Amino acid sequence: MTDDDELTEEINGTGCGDIVTPQDFEYEKPFSFELGGSIPRLTLRYETYGTLNDDKSNAILICHALTGDHHVAGRHRPEDKRPGWWDHFIGAGKAVDTRKYFVICSNCLGGCSGSTGPTSINPETGDPYGIDFPVLTFTDMVRAQKLLIDSLGIKKLHAVIGGSMGGMQALIWAIEFPDMVKNFIAMACAAKQNTQATAFNAVARAAITQDPNWLGGYYGELEGTGPRSGLAVARMMAHITYLSDFSLSAKVRKDRGDNLPGGRIATGKFLRKITFPIESYLHHQGDKFLERFDANSYLYITAATDYFNLAKERSLDQVFSVVKARALILGFSTDWLYPAWQNREIAIALQRAGKNATYAEIDAIAGHDSFLLNSTHLYEMTSKFLAEG
Amino acid sequence: MTDDDELTEEINGTGCGDIVTPQDFEYEKPFSFELGGSIPRLTLRYETYGTLNDDKSNAILICHALTGDHHVAGRHRPEDKRPGWWDHFIGAGKAVDTRKYFVICSNCLGGCSGSTGPTSINPETGDPYGIDFPVLTFTDMVRAQKLLIDSLGIKKLHAVIGGSMGGMQALIWAIEFPDMVKNFIAMACAAKQNTQATAFNAVARAAITQDPNWLGGYYGELEGTGPRSGLAVARMMAHITYLSDFSLSAKVRKDRGDNLPGGRIATGKFLRKITFPIESYLHHQGDKFLERFDANSYLYITAATDYFNLAKERSLDQVFSVVKARALILGFSTDWLYPAWQNREIAIALQRAGKNATYAEIDAIAGHDSFLLNSTHLYEMTSKFLAEG
Repeated sequence: MTDDDELTEEINGTGCGDIVTPQDFEYEKPFSFELGGSIPRLTLRYETYGTLNDDKSNAILICHALTGDHHVAGRHRPEDKRPGWWDHFIGAGKAVDTRKYFVICSNCLGGCSGSTGPTSINPETGDPYGIDFPVLTFTDMVRAQKLLIDSLGIKKLHAVIGGSMGGMQALIWAIEFPDMVKNFIAMACAAKQNTQATAFNAVARAAITQDPNWLGGYYGELEGTGPRSGLAVARMMAHITYLSDFSLSAKVRKDRGDNLPGGRIATGKFLRKITFPIESYLHHQGDKFLERFDANSYLYITAATDYFNLAKERSLDQVFSVVKARALILGFSTDWLYPAWQNREIAIALQRAGKNATYAEIDAIAGHDSFLLNSTHLYEMTSKFLAEG
Repeated sequence: MTDDDELTEEINGTGCGDIVTPQDFEYEKPFSFELGGSIPRLTLRYETYGTLNDDKSNAILICHALTGDHHVAGRHRPEDKRPGWWDHFIGAGKAVDTRKYFVICSNCLGGCSGSTGPTSINPETGDPYGIDFPVLTFTDMVRAQKLLIDSLGIKKLHAVIGGSMGGMQALIWAIEFPDMVKNFIAMACAAKQNTQATAFNAVARAAITQDPNWLGGYYGELEGTGPRSGLAVARMMAHITYLSDFSLSAKVRKDRGDNLPGGRIATGKFLRKITFPIESYLHHQGDKFLERFDANSYLYITAATDYFNLAKERSLDQVFSVVKARALILGFSTDWLYPAWQNREIAIALQRAGKNATYAEIDAIAGHDSFLLNSTHLYEMTSKFLAEG
């Protein structure tokens, strides 16, 4: 769920993806939301990689995680320091081979990286929606993506692939549009948001909405304001849940050690300073996040995550009965946000429903974010699964 | 680390401990802190249970966890709804049998339940210390406890017992004052604060110090103010780390379900409301905490936790070489704040150092707070260990 600079740099330090230019899909009709409300039109910002073949049968849709975006691979400019967030995984000759597949990734509805969301201008008022934007669900995000796929003339996706929130969207795709999905890979996700993950999101929302600069959600009309400290705290906390104790420790191993008090600064004034390398690392993560994410978007998308429960009305087996796609479900051993058992549960339910589903648990040390890291197992399983399907 | 109302109520619903009256130990000499700084005098508020025998050989010191206090058992008034936080464990005929042992528990130095800490009046200025209070460590807390034990004329404690921060203090007791500790039980703790736990504390400190009402730490001079929303957010987050996904889910199973948007409230204004039962539960925990805890105390004690590292300069085996006490170390299977392996590590180091140390991992479903719950295994191991030693 992160797109940790350091993490990406470690992986892609020498990478040099293709140049890619974001595009905007403009849907000029009203869009109705699952839980009520509608907007008169929507934009989805997206990127594509590779070439759509003549019969439009080689398209793969990538769904991003909570705070991800459409920039999944390549670079916008040659001088860009970092490529897209899954660049080691997607590209010419990579696990998702863009010499063979046409890859599409869009910023989710409700996001803040170009797609319509709380920061967008409400055409009816001329002001940003703010929290007048309708409450949204993952199903809404998928239905918006489907409009984009329709607009490209694609009748059937070769695959839908996603991790975390993106994995949950892949499940929804397979259920909502069974004739449009030939294969899907869902990783580091769940069929139902778990209580602990909801609890962390609840604390994040409390941090944001209790920041006096949230202004009841209408900060957006004032430039450069907003619940900055609340959003930074929310991000710092969430960042911990994306890693393992091991990978957190690894982030700071290179640092100089604790900045302990002593001598002249022996009072608590010291507590105004940042003491521990991990504290400094997290503050940096919080600050960086402010540059690229909107607090209201964060509220909407975490709420959508918490609403997510495929088995609300029927058993998971029954819900999956409509699925036609082949499935590859991947859990990661140290993921404690969406533990391996929650991923295995998806595969078992698919199998019970008589579907072609494979499950693998990948041994990984980096917690939830392991799905974003280079892994031979992940790479080879994906590549073979896509080739065989 | 919590003293969760519900949790305690569940255990002690029908309990009816003895009536106990808190006492104040007044130490009227300067006290110097490990990392520098001193205070001219200190108070430790404490409670005792049972009777000290003639040769003063039956005393057991209980060390509380992060936000605990001296009120470990019994009731202050017969009408008190709840007894002390470990009442099921300590009392006549219980695991720590007060018919046999004289039990002592004091609020830690730096705390806010009667012992000297940031909310106390600085005799030199007449104002609360606030963040002019010296930065403190667990060793400081233990050295202050030792003054209390000295004042009671006790030369050797039959045992020191604690969980979480209390367990870490039990380790320090055995190392700092080896001739004063006959036995100790350390549970749900570690010999070194782990990175993940530091990370969560760092976020808590960010939430508090970035609350505009923290006022640089000097809110304490204004009555009824302080960083209330920051402290509540810190507590909500910490509360998650004390439980397991299972025990969090159990907290809300009885609730009515999610309060989903729809119909007339389909916009994000809904996000101003509390949607999920677990969200409501956590907000309640945050609010309750404000009634009984000081934000600066929370900063000091979490920092002390993060400084804690027995093996900073030497190996753990070497550090334990001075220990004379018998040790019982207990980890809990679902504790992810101080995982079982961190407890096992303590026992192994004690054994390597040639000490009499036993380790047990208790199967428990409730995460870190399992040590606060009634458990036959915990009960019997404690009772036998104390009787045999």
